[in-house]
Amino acid sequence: MALAAISLEKPYWFILFFFIFFLISHQSVLATRSKTLKQQNPCKRFFLYYHDNRFSGNATSLANATSLAVINATGFGDKNFGMFVIFDDPMTKDRSYLSAPVARAQGFYFYDGKLQYNVWFAFSLVFNSSEHKGTLNIMGADLFSEKTRDMSIVGGTGDFFMAKGILTIYPDVVQDDYYFRFKMEIKLYECY
Amino acid sequence: MALAAISLEKPYWFILFFFIFFLISHQSVLATRSKTLKQQNPCKRFFLYYHDNRFSGNATSLANATSLAVINATGFGDKNFGMFVIFDDPMTKDRSYLSAPVARAQGFYFYDGKLQYNVWFAFSLVFNSSEHKGTLNIMGADLFSEKTRDMSIVGGTGDFFMAKGILTIYPDVVQDDYYFRFKMEIKLYECY
Amino acid sequence: MALAAISLEKPYWFILFFFIFFLISHQSVLATRSKTLKQQNPCKRFFLYYHDNRFSGNATSLANATSLAVINATGFGDKNFGMFVIFDDPMTKDRSYLSAPVARAQGFYFYDGKLQYNVWFAFSLVFNSSEHKGTLNIMGADLFSEKTRDMSIVGGTGDFFMAKGILTIYPDVVQDDYYFRFKMEIKLYECY
Repeated sequence: MALAAISLEKPYWFILFFFIFFLISHQSVLATRSKTLKQQNPCKRFFLYYHDNRFSGNATSLANATSLAVINATGFGDKNFGMFVIFDDPMTKDRSYLSAPVARAQGFYFYDGKLQYNVWFAFSLVFNSSEHKGTLNIMGADLFSEKTRDMSIVGGTGDFFMAKGILTIYPDVVQDDYYFRFKMEIKLYECY
Repeated sequence: MALAAISLEKPYWFILFFFIFFLISHQSVLATRSKTLKQQNPCKRFFLYYHDNRFSGNATSLANATSLAVINATGFGDKNFGMFVIFDDPMTKDRSYLSAPVARAQGFYFYDGKLQYNVWFAFSLVFNSSEHKGTLNIMGADLFSEKTRDMSIVGGTGDFFMAKGILTIYPDVVQDDYYFRFKMEIKLYECY
Repeated sequence: MALAAISLEKPYWFILFFFIFFLISHQSVLATRSKTLKQQNPCKRFFLYYHDNRFSGNATSLANATSLAVINATGFGDKNFGMFVIFDDPMTKDRSYLSAPVARAQGFYFYDGKLQYNVWFAFSLVFNSSEHKGTLNIMGADLFSEKTRDMSIVGGTGDFFMAKGILTIYPDVVQDDYYFRFKMEIKLYECY
């Protein structure tokens, strides 16, 4: 009877009802909006340089190189199709190949374009510095026709526990056939 | 004193308390339920056909093929174990190999079964049409003993920014040794 | 007029306002806290043993081995750089290689260290038992300098629909050059 009295005789309940629904739906609206804004707002973002110094066949290169084609380019088209490279490449904070590496990029890439150059990557960024310990695992297409190329950061460990994000590649330098450098932008959208 | 008066003398607070808790817990229940329902309710879902036309060794195939075995089948069992194929294959909306591709599938597969045929894939779906721009990154086992096979869509870029989902493969046609076609169902459960 | 009367003349609204905000913000606090605690609280966790029995070249091994180097170690350093192994390895609940497998690990690893041993993995755990059906897809670096190594579980299918987590490797036994065993801890932090 008390309930009936309240709900029928006073406007409190109706007002409350709408107030609470407003609050809860407002919360949902905000949640949805923050999702759509995400692309411009990573929870973590930094830049590193990737140096691929591939073995060229001579003794100096054997000493210095950090990657090797374990399968050579085939005659399927003339864009290196099939060349498969395993690497353990240094990552530096600035452009200089001689700077102290702050991480290693360990994995592989291969050429998969018959009519144009294209490469496909899968690798881990392995951090072991005072700043970061852990790994980020990455895969995706390096499309030569695009000015910048986005890959997926599909997981992380250590400081990057369960991270997920986008790695953007900015091609920087290609030098003769055995050295190239990428600027890499690491953008995490899931941080824990 | 006002508070005491309200909470003790009137039933409003108790009713409100339960009402609010009902609302909030109801919200949680709905959230949980929508999670368990998810498998039937992707936020995006579409079908494409994958055509793998592998180089067979002759001149016509050199002109038309879009994939190549860079490592041949070994003698480890008789199920092609070790054959490693790099591909840049067209994806079409219908079954016809001659339809205009709406995406490319770029990556690799290899045979890893000794006693039965099995294949393992990692690749990107690269979209560059008026409908979709961006990539989906995929990996997983193609288990020949299953009628359909599920792989993981582990990330995406561009229009598929941070996507995650399931790729279901429906084997469609195998023609001589060098052409096969899959129907692929792309189901995204995380869309932004 | 009723509204004005309520909100100005009675303290209900103010108290309610703060009460509701407390509830809603409390809910957020709990959500955030559970996120930061996650690393110790997987939603699913279990252990399995991974046995890699690689083909050594003789007839017994041809019968029993479950993995094969499809690219041999190169002369780039002396740490097996470039050796590329495809496997379909049994996963057991206890240490014994002869126990009935509860899953298969299907995928590949390769050596990518020039100055020290390091390996990189990508594979699927394929479950087909009364306990679990489905797959977990995994990639990451197996860093020999670490006592345990974390990889990313980047997706799952079937019973592990849309799972995400961490796979921790505990090196267990290395026997001559052709057999090694890992204890693997599967920790899922996203379960559906």
